[in-house]
Amino acid sequence: MYSYTVPTKAIVTYTDEEWRYQDVLAREPEAHELLIKIVATGICHTDIANVGGIYPRVLGHEGGGRILRRGADVDPALLEGDPVLLSFAHCRACHMCNTGHPAHCREQVPITIRGQDPNFALANNEGEDERLEDDGGGRKRVVKASYFGHSSFSGIALVKESSVVPMKGLIKDEEELKIFAPLGCGIQTGACAVTNAMKPDPATDSLAVFGLGGVGLSALMAAKALGVRTIIAVDILPNRLSLAEELGATHTINSKGMSRDDLSQALRGLPPFSDPKGPEGPTGIVDTTGIPALLQAALASVHRLGRVVQLANQGPGSNVAVGLPEHMSNGTHLTGTIQGDANPKESIQMLVKWYREGKLPLEKLEQQFKVEDFEKAREEMHAGGVIKPVLIWPQ
Amino acid sequence: MYSYTVPTKAIVTYTDEEWRYQDVLAREPEAHELLIKIVATGICHTDIANVGGIYPRVLGHEGGGRILRRGADVDPALLEGDPVLLSFAHCRACHMCNTGHPAHCREQVPITIRGQDPNFALANNEGEDERLEDDGGGRKRVVKASYFGHSSFSGIALVKESSVVPMKGLIKDEEELKIFAPLGCGIQTGACAVTNAMKPDPATDSLAVFGLGGVGLSALMAAKALGVRTIIAVDILPNRLSLAEELGATHTINSKGMSRDDLSQALRGLPPFSDPKGPEGPTGIVDTTGIPALLQAALASVHRLGRVVQLANQGPGSNVAVGLPEHMSNGTHLTGTIQGDANPKESIQMLVKWYREGKLPLEKLEQQFKVEDFEKAREEMHAGGVIKPVLIWPQ
Repeated sequence: MYSYTVPTKAIVTYTDEEWRYQDVLAREPEAHELLIKIVATGICHTDIANVGGIYPRVLGHEGGGRILRRGADVDPALLEGDPVLLSFAHCRACHMCNTGHPAHCREQVPITIRGQDPNFALANNEGEDERLEDDGGGRKRVVKASYFGHSSFSGIALVKESSVVPMKGLIKDEEELKIFAPLGCGIQTGACAVTNAMKPDPATDSLAVFGLGGVGLSALMAAKALGVRTIIAVDILPNRLSLAEELGATHTINSKGMSRDDLSQALRGLPPFSDPKGPEGPTGIVDTTGIPALLQAALASVHRLGRVVQLANQGPGSNVAVGLPEHMSNGTHLTGTIQGDANPKESIQMLVKWYREGKLPLEKLEQQFKVEDFEKAREEMHAGGVIKPVLIWPQ
Repeated sequence: MYSYTVPTKAIVTYTDEEWRYQDVLAREPEAHELLIKIVATGICHTDIANVGGIYPRVLGHEGGGRILRRGADVDPALLEGDPVLLSFAHCRACHMCNTGHPAHCREQVPITIRGQDPNFALANNEGEDERLEDDGGGRKRVVKASYFGHSSFSGIALVKESSVVPMKGLIKDEEELKIFAPLGCGIQTGACAVTNAMKPDPATDSLAVFGLGGVGLSALMAAKALGVRTIIAVDILPNRLSLAEELGATHTINSKGMSRDDLSQALRGLPPFSDPKGPEGPTGIVDTTGIPALLQAALASVHRLGRVVQLANQGPGSNVAVGLPEHMSNGTHLTGTIQGDANPKESIQMLVKWYREGKLPLEKLEQQFKVEDFEKAREEMHAGGVIKPVLIWPQ
């Protein structure tokens, strides 16, 4: 039984194509929730696909803002007005959460993808229909939210405490809240897939990245930041390959029109590697596409005892056939990871440090849009012209 | 152009069913080869399946014996009369060999599985047929050998130096050469899959082993030797499950008639694990079967961020479909390994140490047969009554 009393505007997703920026009422925070005044939110492919398939819903799962109001049991260190980033919520009670692996929380799917707390009601019951719910004070059309624990496509978001990353002392000004807004998902996912799941030894390891979106380019920047000396960028867009070179790729492969074997041969032919008998593929490959044929190319290309990190998928039921004689003979590791196994409170400090050292030039990936232009931002991201659109919310 | 001058008797494989123990002539060793007087050889499932599919051929890829004759360029530390074990040959020149991973040598398949040097000729051209070859001194029926670099199913074996593990100072008597004969493949494969590929932390990790043949039981003994406190043994044979308990399994599951989901539920229901929200499966699973449905059960059962080690396969073309959303969400590692990524000169020292400490009671796995009784040994192994048959050669 909620009362919806906080007026704001949110982007409400009705279908995969239909997003509306409209007036809503948020509810007040419960014990471990906060209201956040959103400054900026990144758009991620997971939003575009609305992974989870719940409608109508407020999406958004990256963001930066300031604390507007705190629930009764929120950590007393979090004060009204404090700057925060938003990352993924987690249960804070299971073995994974207890041991520094909240991305792999055992409640991860229900809390992040299926998260659907009724955080909002439509102001004026716009779009009134059979889905009206009785909130005790009258019937209202309720809108599901809590995507990844926050649903940050809203001027004021109602978020779970576990999704909040305190930024007091870490940011210099409001402009940085905008620049850092996407750190809590896309950038972290790519960078931490390298630091946590791949863990390359810069002295001996070489790394290929399949797919140069925000996640792939972040993986590449992380590899460069760690000092990996051979970094191979693979994509089908020439502008992405050029950007990858700017960001530290030592080799690029345009895989457009290549068969799985072509790509494998191209990867295995690249010097320099340490085998006196000739090159034998990179020791690590981060696949950001989740496309089975590309994962198979990765498994066929990676060096013996090498690791293929899989951080994406093509939806329920998608799978890759792993050839068992080859997997055994090559001693390959196929490692799944979500959010790069990040612990956001730590990983975001690392990313900010890299940014200040010039190792994470976020400005080369990001493009800011007024929130009203969300359609344009979404389309340009989808078309490949913009890597990481950041929506700027009115203050 | 070889001359075959060393009379001995070998088991020659003509078809998967037809093995003949017959007179052969071995050739003299070349630069990096040795003649070994075999004392004992283990039979492994890889022999029974004749992986590689070459006929006629002398199989055998485990063994113990003494150096009879050395090639000109063999390490001077290897002296005639020295006791040795035989393991897998490798190229000794690639990056994998150079960095302590000879099992994953880039020439592994051609050297071990396809290895087919013409080491023997049939004495008296028994079974004479169109496959006679001219050896320069007349036409003889040549028999391929060099399986894993040695083909130890022979009273005198012609072996590659890289397959030789010196045992001088490591064995007490001839009896130990018999007991240790299988160390170089089956026992090492299981034990090192745990020590090298799984690397469990005894304080926090739990381990399940699928399949309780010589390899699986060796994995189990290694887990116990490392101090792993929860060890789950899975098989369909009650006698194997009882033996597993004797060897250190804390839980057993008879998976006979179980569906993939049944097995997964049984594994995920077992206490004690460290999650305050209840059990969630072992942190590691070693699959010794290579059966795709069992590998899928392993992937569905292993704890988040856990590892499934795959050390077997069901032949060319066999594969497992890995569900990508689940692999990603669970953060699973699927790790292939061959010979447990062992470096035999080191791993066999570790295994002998464990044997002396009572942690590797080989006598519980092994059963000795006279070489003439090879059919019986093979059949009883195949039927499951004998775990590791060891053939004893006449001296």
